[in-house]
Amino acid sequence: MVTFSDSDHFWKGGQTLKVPMELFKENRQRLCEILRCHRTLPPDSFVLLQGGKSEMRYCSDHEPLFRQESYFHWAFGVIEPDFYGAINVQNNESILFIPRLPPSYVAWMGKIKETDEFKKIYHVDHVYYADELEKVFSDLVGASKLILVLNGLNTDSGTESKAAHFDGIEKFHVDKTTLHPVISECRVLKTDLELNVMRYTNKMSSEAHKFVMLNIKDGMYEYELESLFQYYCHRYGAMRHMSYTCICATGENPAVLHYGHAGAPNDRRLTANDMCLFDMGGEYCCYASDITCSFPVSGTFTKEQRIIYEAVLDANRQVMKSVQPNVSWIDMHLLAERTQLEHLKLAGLVQGDIEEMMDTRLGAIFMPHGLGHMLGIDTHDVGGYLEPHTRSTLPGLKSLRTNRLLKERMCLTIEPGIYFNQALLNDAYKNEQLSKFLNKTEIDKYLHIGGVRIEDNIFITKDGCELLTKVPRTCEEIEEWMKNNKKQSNDNVDYE
Amino acid sequence: MVTFSDSDHFWKGGQTLKVPMELFKENRQRLCEILRCHRTLPPDSFVLLQGGKSEMRYCSDHEPLFRQESYFHWAFGVIEPDFYGAINVQNNESILFIPRLPPSYVAWMGKIKETDEFKKIYHVDHVYYADELEKVFSDLVGASKLILVLNGLNTDSGTESKAAHFDGIEKFHVDKTTLHPVISECRVLKTDLELNVMRYTNKMSSEAHKFVMLNIKDGMYEYELESLFQYYCHRYGAMRHMSYTCICATGENPAVLHYGHAGAPNDRRLTANDMCLFDMGGEYCCYASDITCSFPVSGTFTKEQRIIYEAVLDANRQVMKSVQPNVSWIDMHLLAERTQLEHLKLAGLVQGDIEEMMDTRLGAIFMPHGLGHMLGIDTHDVGGYLEPHTRSTLPGLKSLRTNRLLKERMCLTIEPGIYFNQALLNDAYKNEQLSKFLNKTEIDKYLHIGGVRIEDNIFITKDGCELLTKVPRTCEEIEEWMKNNKKQSNDNVDYE
Ligand SMILES: [Mn+2]
Ligand SMILES: [Mn+2]
Repeated sequence: MVTFSDSDHFWKGGQTLKVPMELFKENRQRLCEILRCHRTLPPDSFVLLQGGKSEMRYCSDHEPLFRQESYFHWAFGVIEPDFYGAINVQNNESILFIPRLPPSYVAWMGKIKETDEFKKIYHVDHVYYADELEKVFSDLVGASKLILVLNGLNTDSGTESKAAHFDGIEKFHVDKTTLHPVISECRVLKTDLELNVMRYTNKMSSEAHKFVMLNIKDGMYEYELESLFQYYCHRYGAMRHMSYTCICATGENPAVLHYGHAGAPNDRRLTANDMCLFDMGGEYCCYASDITCSFPVSGTFTKEQRIIYEAVLDANRQVMKSVQPNVSWIDMHLLAERTQLEHLKLAGLVQGDIEEMMDTRLGAIFMPHGLGHMLGIDTHDVGGYLEPHTRSTLPGLKSLRTNRLLKERMCLTIEPGIYFNQALLNDAYKNEQLSKFLNKTEIDKYLHIGGVRIEDNIFITKDGCELLTKVPRTCEEIEEWMKNNKKQSNDNVDYE
Repeated sequence: MVTFSDSDHFWKGGQTLKVPMELFKENRQRLCEILRCHRTLPPDSFVLLQGGKSEMRYCSDHEPLFRQESYFHWAFGVIEPDFYGAINVQNNESILFIPRLPPSYVAWMGKIKETDEFKKIYHVDHVYYADELEKVFSDLVGASKLILVLNGLNTDSGTESKAAHFDGIEKFHVDKTTLHPVISECRVLKTDLELNVMRYTNKMSSEAHKFVMLNIKDGMYEYELESLFQYYCHRYGAMRHMSYTCICATGENPAVLHYGHAGAPNDRRLTANDMCLFDMGGEYCCYASDITCSFPVSGTFTKEQRIIYEAVLDANRQVMKSVQPNVSWIDMHLLAERTQLEHLKLAGLVQGDIEEMMDTRLGAIFMPHGLGHMLGIDTHDVGGYLEPHTRSTLPGLKSLRTNRLLKERMCLTIEPGIYFNQALLNDAYKNEQLSKFLNKTEIDKYLHIGGVRIEDNIFITKDGCELLTKVPRTCEEIEEWMKNNKKQSNDNVDYE
């Protein structure tokens, strides 16, 4: 806490990034500016957000490490649980409501900070206790007594955000519909200060991927690579949380898009001929990175590995060259798909007319997921679908997490991939419309690859994009970097 | 999954521990044996447990890495979410109810396993789908239609376990009171198979602590040591989860017992004269370890550091020599406290009559927490207080997580400590009854130490205990081990 509370920064010391609290103040201002343009909203409205709560694992005494709720983090940057935050729409004034801690806190959890300390740490205008919410609101809100709370649907997970609640809130006029679309749209467009954090998480996570590539060896288990990645992110990037569960897929496992979960926990043993698909990213100050590197364990691509890898890389780079404001993300998905199919045709895995393949959605057999998604405080960041939701029902396209036209200041992933999923291929072989395109004999030669994904994080600029991810990407760059793997043995993290 | 589903073991390959599914079968048998002795229970009763659920972080699309609910794990050892499990009390027959997964699972999460595969993996008698719960129970339960579900209080956290529920359960007779005390008491006494897992988690976590001691350097941040510990546990022990949030306290931070949480996230920079108090443990197959090592950053104890350290170690060893079945844990707490006060008196920090100090509960100023706790699938394992709960209200003693007589096969921590918590000391200086014992001038010389805790994990045997923790413990052992720190520079995990 010393490094943190001494200043108005989120900072972990040394070479880690200083994130000024100004970032969150600016977010609040942006929100209020838009809300003030809402003609139907009375000027004396307040926004009320409830922060994440401290929780126990089921009925145990185990408290998982707290991570702030994302909307609350966006608005206040508070690292502790059990806060509320309010914003006066008229003048951007901010209020934090902090939990009243028991005296025993001082022995178990640390110094009890006073309201004035929190005011300084989080750069807000007022700080009260959470048990004063009703009283403070009674004093503050004007004739309209309007409180805007967050309530709306996450279009990726289908979960509904739970509106802030305090005892006595029923005395006020509570608006549950206005806030969610407005604040979500604010989150879609990143400020320079936010971009800076995402540059940092990408830089450190890129370095961690490179570190994994240096230390990989035939005979290791997938989870060892996960441990190396997390170690690097945490030690050198002060990224205590990963953005999402690490996917360390080798052999045929890359064909499973979300491999690595509790039921498939990165526990396969690597063999020398494997391709790796490592989808891992750390978060700092609750801002995510989401990077996938695919490469051979051996450090040298086989002919088949290279063919698939270069097909995916071409798709990735074609999209990267094409993105700019007003470009449709659906078009980008189709561009990636078409590029990959062209490569597969050239290599003889598919045959026939490319446009016909596109029409039958053949591409979704090889790439069942969407091209990419919004990235920010959540890995699958909010705002992918504007109301009314109009998600496609077509294979591949229905998996897109956004169907929008790109805008300057969006952050997204570009993550095309080609996968050899036995179950999906078997379905396709049985499908009259699809099977005619598929050359099973050739495809069978590639099954052992499992799949390749190349995932970069980008920021949309006025006329293109900034690439945030900095890892070896071409086959040549990867082979060159992994040469160092062999030289490394005395200088790596082995300890046995 | 290959290493796991190929056999009836939980195993992570290589040198990691093979945990036979027999462990959970034996647990179920133990439970049924005791339930069958319940005279009021009809013989055709069934136990029903609901496993942990897959969850989203608030309203996001972020799914935290699943960790099984502890009672369910104890009975079935299932690693996946959204299961139910039932046991026929009469004949120990076991049934798993698995979630019916959507066809899209195969592309996103992996191969969909059939009921027969799960039967083999988890060594149970029958497997059905969770949507068949009502039907299966209608067919199975006899005239009594009695289903025993879990409902009861966790005496450490005050949280209540949520009874298993499925649509249609209201048609059956549901008993919410019988199961909780019985299964909790079963969890208190560890079988040989469980002991073996706890030996393993202790061995690997001990090695990880030693690894941290080898790599510590003046100028590092506390979280770097956390990253090193987790890395070692994960890579070499396949311990993907920590048993609890790592406490990496240096400087004055050791005085805060649960330092390291989100509000005090291990972010202080180490200086050469610091003592470290590192309370960290990994879990394997959901069995915990909970180890605290205290040592100087420099690798050499100062006079003051040694005085406090040896006081705590003496308390730890006195208790370790005294534990055996039928010994009272309260007596052990008092023994530790008395031992520590004697050392503090010898060193001049306190003065006066020891018995009088004990009567005023002076010891709780220096050791506000309890001597130790049950250890098992949870770090603070269940069963600390038998009904009716009779927790002491006296300082120190009220923090004890158990007040029981020891029994053979209990697993516990022994973790005495001496802390210099400014706020607690200031309160004591103002307290007439306590201040007369305190020599402020001497105590002030020790404030910079923050605190020392020495935490070992033990298994109660017929006539004593087995020490599971294997780390350097005496000052001499620590100094000897840390000498290797200096020699290490070319062979450690540094990478810059
Ligand atoms: Mn992604
Ligand atoms: Mn403990």
